[in-house]
Amino acid sequence: MAMAAVTELGAALRDLVDAAVRSTVDPAELTAAAAGAREITARLSTSQRPVHQLSALDDLASFRRVYNPVTGVGNPLAAPLAIRQEDDGVVADASFGSAYEGPPGYVHGGVSSLLMDQLLGAAAKAAGRWGMTARLELDYRRPVPLATPLVLRARMTEEAGRRTVTTGTIALADAPDQPLVAARGVFVAPRPDRTASYFRAVVDASGRQSPPVHPTDATALRRPGQEPA
Amino acid sequence: MAMAAVTELGAALRDLVDAAVRSTVDPAELTAAAAGAREITARLSTSQRPVHQLSALDDLASFRRVYNPVTGVGNPLAAPLAIRQEDDGVVADASFGSAYEGPPGYVHGGVSSLLMDQLLGAAAKAAGRWGMTARLELDYRRPVPLATPLVLRARMTEEAGRRTVTTGTIALADAPDQPLVAARGVFVAPRPDRTASYFRAVVDASGRQSPPVHPTDATALRRPGQEPA
Repeated sequence: MAMAAVTELGAALRDLVDAAVRSTVDPAELTAAAAGAREITARLSTSQRPVHQLSALDDLASFRRVYNPVTGVGNPLAAPLAIRQEDDGVVADASFGSAYEGPPGYVHGGVSSLLMDQLLGAAAKAAGRWGMTARLELDYRRPVPLATPLVLRARMTEEAGRRTVTTGTIALADAPDQPLVAARGVFVAPRPDRTASYFRAVVDASGRQSPPVHPTDATALRRPGQEPA
Repeated sequence: MAMAAVTELGAALRDLVDAAVRSTVDPAELTAAAAGAREITARLSTSQRPVHQLSALDDLASFRRVYNPVTGVGNPLAAPLAIRQEDDGVVADASFGSAYEGPPGYVHGGVSSLLMDQLLGAAAKAAGRWGMTARLELDYRRPVPLATPLVLRARMTEEAGRRTVTTGTIALADAPDQPLVAARGVFVAPRPDRTASYFRAVVDASGRQSPPVHPTDATALRRPGQEPA
């Protein structure tokens, strides 16, 4: 019930963001829309979690983060990417509208890096590893077109101690073997004392201190054949 | 007038996104908010530009892109960063809320890369160069806290032919010389025939074919002492 409502609002706001970015209505209509948005904001703001409090719908044990900016169904900034486990890695299908534009007609280069950071981290998690991003490298070979079906892939290539390396690509769904963008990520699990220090302020929805042991930003992965949550 | 209305709507939707991500109201209230958002979307959607049409407020000659996902005042996904020219490079102040969260309490690593791609490109432009991102590298030294004043900097370090290299950092505003994230970008201006091919579908607000000569995604830079547009 709560998850359905969060998902519905996330989808409605995603559509609203797209409409705002593409709208060519008169300034008076834009101003009226802004007033309407402020009314909704006021109603949603009557009860809020502080910045270090997890959502009641988050489950760090299963890596579910409903407001993640790449995969979170409740976050209007997210496509959202549904990342699934497949073969020896992870894969996601996506298509991006004008809100993600960099050069005219193409996805912003930084958006590609945002997506790949998430996907590379998910590949580490799919391999039973975890870590925070220590290094991220991207090679941009061709621009990534807007409003076009894309396929994003990543898989683990190295693991040693607290360090995991994953690589991945963004390609047209029609030409999945010709990468437009190639990426490499190095993920490092901080030492337990550092993890404890980084996350000591985190509390759960009831206000209890709740520092995560594996504080990845990845969301739950769908296993092959599993339906979306 | 149009710019003021676009800016007002962008700001109102940015607040709405933040409120949605932090709200702990009942599911029924979330569903009502979604219905309200859909009404606004319907009104904004009565007149829309297609994906290859620039906004009437965009000015590629002065690099103004009002819906850029990092700097665009009209884009709810954008902070928005106000990038200004300073000393030998560019600088921006920022602070990020829960919508940009990766690990609990910290900015998503991919968001840092999104920001730095924009800033590194702006540094190339500030030096009188331009290009599309060819390579992006980020070293993450410490997590970047949410809801904390940050300072982002970038400057050009190499230029040769069609290639420009810039480097930059993200740091706490209180400790600007201790980078949390260090970044390096390589920007390459495509050959004129390739540029023409990439952007041949771009039309201006009146529908005229309008392929940009320098199709950067950077927005106008503020010169020292200049007020925001």
